Amino acid sequence: MNNKNKKLPDTQNKTDKRKIPINRVGIKNLRYPILVKDRDNKHQHTIAMISMTVDLPMHFKGTHMSRFVEILEKNGKEINIESLFDILTEMQNKLHAKASHIVLEFPYFRTKTAPVSKLQSLMDYRVKFHAVKYNGDKDFIMTVVVPVKTLCPCSKNISKYGAHNQRGDITVSVRFKGNIWIEEIIDAVEDSASCDLYSLLKREDEKYVTEKAYKNPVFVEDVSRNTVMRLKKMKNIKWYSVEAENYESIHNHNAYAHIESTNICKKYKEFIISRY
Amino acid sequence: MNNKNKKLPDTQNKTDKRKIPINRVGIKNLRYPILVKDRDNKHQHTIAMISMTVDLPMHFKGTHMSRFVEILEKNGKEINIESLFDILTEMQNKLHAKASHIVLEFPYFRTKTAPVSKLQSLMDYRVKFHAVKYNGDKDFIMTVVVPVKTLCPCSKNISKYGAHNQRGDITVSVRFKGNIWIEEIIDAVEDSASCDLYSLLKREDEKYVTEKAYKNPVFVEDVSRNTVMRLKKMKNIKWYSVEAENYESIHNHNAYAHIESTNICKKYKEFIISRY
Amino acid sequence: MNNKNKKLPDTQNKTDKRKIPINRVGIKNLRYPILVKDRDNKHQHTIAMISMTVDLPMHFKGTHMSRFVEILEKNGKEINIESLFDILTEMQNKLHAKASHIVLEFPYFRTKTAPVSKLQSLMDYRVKFHAVKYNGDKDFIMTVVVPVKTLCPCSKNISKYGAHNQRGDITVSVRFKGNIWIEEIIDAVEDSASCDLYSLLKREDEKYVTEKAYKNPVFVEDVSRNTVMRLKKMKNIKWYSVEAENYESIHNHNAYAHIESTNICKKYKEFIISRY
Amino acid sequence: MNNKNKKLPDTQNKTDKRKIPINRVGIKNLRYPILVKDRDNKHQHTIAMISMTVDLPMHFKGTHMSRFVEILEKNGKEINIESLFDILTEMQNKLHAKASHIVLEFPYFRTKTAPVSKLQSLMDYRVKFHAVKYNGDKDFIMTVVVPVKTLCPCSKNISKYGAHNQRGDITVSVRFKGNIWIEEIIDAVEDSASCDLYSLLKREDEKYVTEKAYKNPVFVEDVSRNTVMRLKKMKNIKWYSVEAENYESIHNHNAYAHIESTNICKKYKEFIISRY
Repeated sequence: MNNKNKKLPDTQNKTDKRKIPINRVGIKNLRYPILVKDRDNKHQHTIAMISMTVDLPMHFKGTHMSRFVEILEKNGKEINIESLFDILTEMQNKLHAKASHIVLEFPYFRTKTAPVSKLQSLMDYRVKFHAVKYNGDKDFIMTVVVPVKTLCPCSKNISKYGAHNQRGDITVSVRFKGNIWIEEIIDAVEDSASCDLYSLLKREDEKYVTEKAYKNPVFVEDVSRNTVMRLKKMKNIKWYSVEAENYESIHNHNAYAHIESTNICKKYKEFIISRY
Repeated sequence: MNNKNKKLPDTQNKTDKRKIPINRVGIKNLRYPILVKDRDNKHQHTIAMISMTVDLPMHFKGTHMSRFVEILEKNGKEINIESLFDILTEMQNKLHAKASHIVLEFPYFRTKTAPVSKLQSLMDYRVKFHAVKYNGDKDFIMTVVVPVKTLCPCSKNISKYGAHNQRGDITVSVRFKGNIWIEEIIDAVEDSASCDLYSLLKREDEKYVTEKAYKNPVFVEDVSRNTVMRLKKMKNIKWYSVEAENYESIHNHNAYAHIESTNICKKYKEFIISRY
Repeated sequence: MNNKNKKLPDTQNKTDKRKIPINRVGIKNLRYPILVKDRDNKHQHTIAMISMTVDLPMHFKGTHMSRFVEILEKNGKEINIESLFDILTEMQNKLHAKASHIVLEFPYFRTKTAPVSKLQSLMDYRVKFHAVKYNGDKDFIMTVVVPVKTLCPCSKNISKYGAHNQRGDITVSVRFKGNIWIEEIIDAVEDSASCDLYSLLKREDEKYVTEKAYKNPVFVEDVSRNTVMRLKKMKNIKWYSVEAENYESIHNHNAYAHIESTNICKKYKEFIISRY
Repeated sequence: MNNKNKKLPDTQNKTDKRKIPINRVGIKNLRYPILVKDRDNKHQHTIAMISMTVDLPMHFKGTHMSRFVEILEKNGKEINIESLFDILTEMQNKLHAKASHIVLEFPYFRTKTAPVSKLQSLMDYRVKFHAVKYNGDKDFIMTVVVPVKTLCPCSKNISKYGAHNQRGDITVSVRFKGNIWIEEIIDAVEDSASCDLYSLLKREDEKYVTEKAYKNPVFVEDVSRNTVMRLKKMKNIKWYSVEAENYESIHNHNAYAHIESTNICKKYKEFIISRY
């Protein structure tokens, strides 16, 4: 803090008498360029929407909002799980807080190879990192939204020809020990749908994905369960939540399913994000 | 205007010396409940997002924003084309303007009957009314967004079984003389797609729509052209724009087509919305 | 179910061997006109986005999506808390489920009187009803988003003149016994901010709200705590969550605060929405 | 094109008998990482939403959607005005088209220095490039959305203390000869508002921006006109459109103004984007 600042009154530091602690206070929807680890190319440049919050004890009037951005400017360019916890530690120190959260949402790209023509193109996925520290305890959830194709088993079974199909978004959140690549979650989902999506498909590829989808019909229930079965085989995963939303091509509303891994009582002993 | 107000300085009324007239100035994104004419049920209640603007001559510093809301409060509950032009006339009078615009966007509902079970349910469409007056000249564009099902002719032709299909939004804008019902535009689009959508379909209906779509494959190009052919047969329609956007079920991006009725040079003599 | 339907295979009813129960499955983002209770005018017409889900035991392949819409068509026009639980009971019966959810989000209007001119205009708020039943146990959360004006206490304290201020959205969720009007939550929030908002303000009103806001500076922390203090005095409220988000007029990101009433451990015994 | 593809029928290439040419057909909302020229740092990595379309003569059934993505994969990583016209030329060649459009929308970052503390932080702006070719004629529009602070002159004039202020978005579109930097447009707008925004402000900076804004009150009309006056002095600019939208802190709706440079009749001789 420089001299000019010291002379100005520090309104936030005043004593508060309402006796109401604040669970989370900070900044939301700050857009910021970041560099994320990438299994295939070491890292990739992307743009994140960032929120950073801490708890505020009942006796303080306010937190110091500018410090969040200062910490981000100092540490935020290259993002991985460890660097996020370093940011949280600095947030706790600079803002005298016990609990700290950082949430980043960003598009993430992967090169996909078309199934027959073998032409390559980039596919985009939406990813969210949510890291939290409470004193020294840590919690981390990685969320990946994977768009896929789903073909309706009922429509196929009852119709002489064809079957309605559509784009759907499968949202997978996981807690894990060690490391899980974004790409592993994408694979688990894409293998669970009627077919995966590509930015570039030539006619021979379009034939392939059309027929593959027709041979693999799935309801929202099926794609969720198939994904869960694959997540269960990934040893590092401790907890998962799988949501499927189909933009039904016969309705103007969506079909939806949600599966969460464990019962809530066990979970809340260990999972800090839900508590602070 | 009451006495208290008269004593306060009127900043907006000051003379402006920058010599820059303003094309449009007013309010945007005011949410407001309205009553709209409905072919089948006389009228329906819905919620609109409303914008109202006028031009401002170069010698005035500002318009009087509160008058837009006053005029809306007085006139805005029951909306039809005539009432919109009454509102525009009042805007021109109260705000000393030559050009005036009002734009309303709202969801609109229609009861649809499932094709086999004959069960009824409500389908939602998005509608926009854009009315403009320049001195005494009038212009009006009605836009209807109709969600439909499209099944890919290429995918059907090249594949042993199945064909990719998806939800698409067809956006039709029309200028017309006399009257055109929102329902007529919806019919023109729904008859032009692979199949129309329903909120409620039993299994026998699902079989019907699946097979109907398979028998009627359309590209974005086809659904646009089919719609244009139907609009051309509607005598009252003077101008149209048709956009088709397919939420492709094999890609994470969309397919898009746009057809506009006449060449721009002719159009701009008559069509005031584009000029002021 | 009619005869035609009986002859078609019921794919959803098939036995599933993956042994994975589904927490929630159903329909999402169905737009639908509803009639909501209103303290001042008995009821008002509005448009809701609706989601309806049930649980699905591990041995069933799928739920029957069309039944959600059938139940809504039969019961959904006039919405209040009791009618929502009737819908949930019917969902549990028709879909053989233990847990059932219905969520409705809709704009809600209230006539406000300008502070000096006494002119009346409609203000819009966003409301969410989330009702859940697990067997016979019930849970209900009402959420109201109240837009307000917040003026920064720090900016006022350190500046010779003026103070930055902005629009903010305060999101209040409550569980309660007996009845709480939407209007009561709105009042609690509007009294807690620097000033409340109006659609129609004449100059004498604008002077009033400007000066009122300057005399009542609040951080996101303050408006949250002030709201909590008012909610605590409302005897019927059993649980609350208050979020404040300021669209800061000096930044392109937002300031955010969140206060939740009780610790998580107690809560999860009683609050069913969080568990199913 | 490989052998497998040649054997599959080319549905798009079929003759169409409806006699309706299509103005624009192609792909929309493809998310894609790009590298953009940056005045201060040579270039920056960002993520664009991309649309690419061509016209389609009346005698063809459809365009070939995969070629857009192939062309983008080959040419699209490093974007500047010249490279966009190279892409358009390739689109015209590969798709046998006369008219071609490419539109890219992306966040763009600039390092800003806080006015007193001199601390640096990144500010985000939204940018759109729209390039079009018709045969050999070219047209290009650059759009920059600049968020600023606006303080109401009326509120200041009529109130004993304070003045309502808020975040506003100023959207500037320009056609130009030679070169115009994104940074030049940002400067023109930020100098025209009550104050510009920063991601990082310490207390001494907050005092500065609060007082600066209070000394420079502007309506939406003023910030638009001020921006136009600055654009008029930039010799390279041939055409401009300036929109101002204030997220009013005393209303839940917005104030809006729009100024466009020339009258429509002149414009349409030269400006190709509007015609094809």
